[in-house]
Amino acid sequence: MALEGGLWGARQSVNRDRALPHGLRMLEAAGNLDNLRIAAGRSTGQYRGPVFMDSDVYKWLEAASHEVARAPSDSLTAAMQPLIELVAAAQRDDGYVNSYFQVPEPGRRWTDFAYGHELYCAGHLFQAAVAHHRATGTTSLLGIARRFADYLCATFGANRRVGVPGHPEVETALVELFRETGARAYLHLAAFFVDQRGRGWLGPGRYNSPGHYQDRVPVRESAELEGHAVRAQYLTAGVTDLYLETAERALLDAVTRQWNDLVTHKLYITGAVGSRHLAEAFGQPYELPNELAYGETCAAIASFMWSWRMLLATGQSRFADLMERTLYNGILSGVSIDGERYFYVNPLASNGLDERLSRGGCRRQEWHRVACCPPNVMRLLASLGHYFATQDEGGLQLHQYAGARVAADLVPGRPVVLRMDTAYPWDGQVRVTIEEGGGAPWRLSLRVPGWAEAWIVRVNGATADLTPDGAGYLRLDRAWRSGEVVDVEWRLTPKFVEAHPRIESAWGCVAIERGPVVYCLEHADHPAVSVLDVEADTTAPLRAEHAPGLLGGVTVIRGSGAAVDTSSWNGRLYGPLGTNGTAARRPIEFVAIPYYAWANRSPGAMRVWIPRAGRGL
Amino acid sequence: MALEGGLWGARQSVNRDRALPHGLRMLEAAGNLDNLRIAAGRSTGQYRGPVFMDSDVYKWLEAASHEVARAPSDSLTAAMQPLIELVAAAQRDDGYVNSYFQVPEPGRRWTDFAYGHELYCAGHLFQAAVAHHRATGTTSLLGIARRFADYLCATFGANRRVGVPGHPEVETALVELFRETGARAYLHLAAFFVDQRGRGWLGPGRYNSPGHYQDRVPVRESAELEGHAVRAQYLTAGVTDLYLETAERALLDAVTRQWNDLVTHKLYITGAVGSRHLAEAFGQPYELPNELAYGETCAAIASFMWSWRMLLATGQSRFADLMERTLYNGILSGVSIDGERYFYVNPLASNGLDERLSRGGCRRQEWHRVACCPPNVMRLLASLGHYFATQDEGGLQLHQYAGARVAADLVPGRPVVLRMDTAYPWDGQVRVTIEEGGGAPWRLSLRVPGWAEAWIVRVNGATADLTPDGAGYLRLDRAWRSGEVVDVEWRLTPKFVEAHPRIESAWGCVAIERGPVVYCLEHADHPAVSVLDVEADTTAPLRAEHAPGLLGGVTVIRGSGAAVDTSSWNGRLYGPLGTNGTAARRPIEFVAIPYYAWANRSPGAMRVWIPRAGRGL
Repeated sequence: MALEGGLWGARQSVNRDRALPHGLRMLEAAGNLDNLRIAAGRSTGQYRGPVFMDSDVYKWLEAASHEVARAPSDSLTAAMQPLIELVAAAQRDDGYVNSYFQVPEPGRRWTDFAYGHELYCAGHLFQAAVAHHRATGTTSLLGIARRFADYLCATFGANRRVGVPGHPEVETALVELFRETGARAYLHLAAFFVDQRGRGWLGPGRYNSPGHYQDRVPVRESAELEGHAVRAQYLTAGVTDLYLETAERALLDAVTRQWNDLVTHKLYITGAVGSRHLAEAFGQPYELPNELAYGETCAAIASFMWSWRMLLATGQSRFADLMERTLYNGILSGVSIDGERYFYVNPLASNGLDERLSRGGCRRQEWHRVACCPPNVMRLLASLGHYFATQDEGGLQLHQYAGARVAADLVPGRPVVLRMDTAYPWDGQVRVTIEEGGGAPWRLSLRVPGWAEAWIVRVNGATADLTPDGAGYLRLDRAWRSGEVVDVEWRLTPKFVEAHPRIESAWGCVAIERGPVVYCLEHADHPAVSVLDVEADTTAPLRAEHAPGLLGGVTVIRGSGAAVDTSSWNGRLYGPLGTNGTAARRPIEFVAIPYYAWANRSPGAMRVWIPRAGRGL
Repeated sequence: MALEGGLWGARQSVNRDRALPHGLRMLEAAGNLDNLRIAAGRSTGQYRGPVFMDSDVYKWLEAASHEVARAPSDSLTAAMQPLIELVAAAQRDDGYVNSYFQVPEPGRRWTDFAYGHELYCAGHLFQAAVAHHRATGTTSLLGIARRFADYLCATFGANRRVGVPGHPEVETALVELFRETGARAYLHLAAFFVDQRGRGWLGPGRYNSPGHYQDRVPVRESAELEGHAVRAQYLTAGVTDLYLETAERALLDAVTRQWNDLVTHKLYITGAVGSRHLAEAFGQPYELPNELAYGETCAAIASFMWSWRMLLATGQSRFADLMERTLYNGILSGVSIDGERYFYVNPLASNGLDERLSRGGCRRQEWHRVACCPPNVMRLLASLGHYFATQDEGGLQLHQYAGARVAADLVPGRPVVLRMDTAYPWDGQVRVTIEEGGGAPWRLSLRVPGWAEAWIVRVNGATADLTPDGAGYLRLDRAWRSGEVVDVEWRLTPKFVEAHPRIESAWGCVAIERGPVVYCLEHADHPAVSVLDVEADTTAPLRAEHAPGLLGGVTVIRGSGAAVDTSSWNGRLYGPLGTNGTAARRPIEFVAIPYYAWANRSPGAMRVWIPRAGRGL
């Protein structure tokens, strides 16, 4: 599926034209490429950066490969070539390649499973190689990956060495490498790593809990998400992949329990996951602070990738719902409109002050010392079309709505092609035009978004009275002919949303959503008042207004409320009820922008959850 | 001032009879004493624990010294003796003593100012020595301290070596050592350490900010509290001590700005300070999460010690107000009723689940791997009477109310003695009986607690119409005679308290206070409902009821409210406003206990801030 125009078309263009060249410059400047050059014997000097620097190179290569698959690019192809040659030159004869354990720690291969990230880096190499092979048909990178994977298969396994990757990633990558190559050894090794896990083999680690890296509970017994949010979800993605290949029910049951734990206890409204700066970890149930939210961009991407695999495993729309929520909010917030500035941490509120002690704050950075997120965004955006539609023998399933062209071979030699035209998510109208019908009946499935309360479907202009099936999809069975048209209108109304009463950070508050987009108040739109003092009048209407020139083109929401004058508190933090209750409030109009678009103007305050006027103290 | 009976008398007894013996066992078990034995050449083996293990021994010695001063004790004296001999045996000829830098890192003295804690340990040695000398009149420990201090004076200084202690503590200790010995070199060295600070000499450190250890801004320019909460406040305590000896206005101005920053931006209602688990640090203004609160016991103690010095510097009751709030809540919560279990972290809410990834949770521990807090509580409780009253040439000032006897020599040879009788904080009646009047007129000053809204004062039965002066005290000038009586009644009514609107963790909520005591709801009193689902009806009365058999004797508060049935949410975390608004609520009565007394029964949920019934969504 090729995305065309609209929000995602624009983001993909920026990703290709701005972010990827920027990323390559950053990989050069930060030392990622020099590290490989030293490992290859082509340069001298000191290794720079954390142990997993190679993985950022691989993620960039994966992103560039997806881009080349989207549209040929001489410049990207030319940029990839020396990187691939560099990895090849750095690779040892036995297949191993890892600049950290070749340069500063040459004698310590496989001595630090907990934090060494060797298998994590290997996994990203495999994913890049699969993308590159699919994009180009050439094996220059796939060959490197296979030699490394073969070495891993010779090293680890039931009758060989035990090992538990401290940072999961290689599991899903090995399954993908199996799919691309057909070599079952890779699948078996993925299963081995999954089977070894959860028995405390890694030890208590830096946070005194094997739960930090998902080594506390065996995979098939897992019922919750705990510890490092990216690690946890790269693992569940890998376990779901393993289920997809083995159909072992215990695996699907385990990840289903964990997914339910996510959406019932540990999910931000933006799709962000991982509450804690400390250990970059999931918190306890309902522990979802706003300013202190961690919400690492990579964790949202991991959630998206995992839910995609759950969708493939089950066909249920709730997984596509979470993908949509996460994509439009918690992932897209991770990259600036111009594609060259990034958030590692994605809080739901900011007081607009600079942060000194962590990766948070209200200023996007051009890169990070731990730079996992930027190239992760790049590879996701470059491959985004892969996640929007599926096919099976009976038809096509549209999971996400965007300007796009979808081509499939439902019956060999009889291609089916359809086009989606829409200004989604700003507009709920989606027109599906059949360009080639394929000559035989097939089923067109349309996901009913979880947020949708009303919709109208017309087939060639005639209203179709459809209700979603148990999986959450509208189904249209027909011998589709070229030129036939399905029009869907998802009614898009801005609305106030409330949170489960156990979430303390949203007590007495509302958020604003319209379709899949979560909104926020940002300082730049409220020069006369701090957005931290705004209350929303939930009895007054919300009004949507498209602003094509703002923040790359967004629909803003206007509403009414009050600005609290906290001066009566006179600096005090606490006082008897009512003493300060007469704090003056003056009526104001507020403007909410999509959350993902914050921090693209001057640094300042922002909030997603807004106290309800008249409900405060 | 000797505390007698009541809450503090009981706590001091437990501290003496249970906590101190327990602490000594723990120091033995954890290796603190063995480390010193190895350093002294009396034992072999491996150093155990973090770098600052010696400091816990010193804090225990300080506590035991305060106890011996309170009342002679053969067992405590006998227990101290071998420890002092051990420190003496470990001390090097040049005066240096630090088991970490003598045993595992013998060649690395003064190589890690940021995290080595050598000067921090020295400071605790000095404080213990001062307490021991005051208690016993002997110099066995003071001599060790002076040799070390003299070595420091020969090592560091204007024309000698530069050094900035990564963990402040030695500054206040050196001033105290100066006061005890009269040796001005110690005062000068304290000033030197204060002057060097705030210029980035320590480097960015583990958290990439010299602000973490207060090395970002020169002391005299500081306007806010930042970084590690204990470090920050041990420093401000030392700076205030320096002001008390030098009268340099710029020092007082700086700590006054920082104290104002504390109480207007960074203070929990319990007096707890330091919002963040990450780096044990102060957060941004109004960043005061409940479950995620750090509120290290040591940070509350540091706040108490700092405010005491501010009180000495200014005579203003607001500092005694904060001491009271912190003592009855954020400090006392750090130790169990039985004196043998501790909290390192003091959150304002708990869901009752076990915590796996940090020092938090709802179970008190018998000791900690980083065991700074337990002996810190011990030394504070043992010396508590020192903080309740002061004298000057004109009279006596009562800052805190408790059963106690106060003796002073306002005029040499003409002692003044008074007795306080009260069941404070459970009862607001305080009787001050003059036992010896001293023969000349003097002024009795009574602090008006910041929480007090009404009071009655009677002198020998006759109502005195007094209003507080600008410093916040009632002043009674009189030629006091033996047997004269001042009766004060602070009207104690339970009340709902609200928080500044910028504090998101208290949006739509109230807390309950009565006098200086902050209350909480705990699971053990609410078998039929989770306290996490309780809302308070703020239009219904609160009723105080003394429960002498409960939790060592506490006054509980009964109120009315509702229990929210969250089952209508059916696991969802977010939904359109009103969809779940019909969540059933059933009326309930709740019982609030003093916050400090939580987690003394079975582990379970607790909360301080309670949503207001009818204000939720």
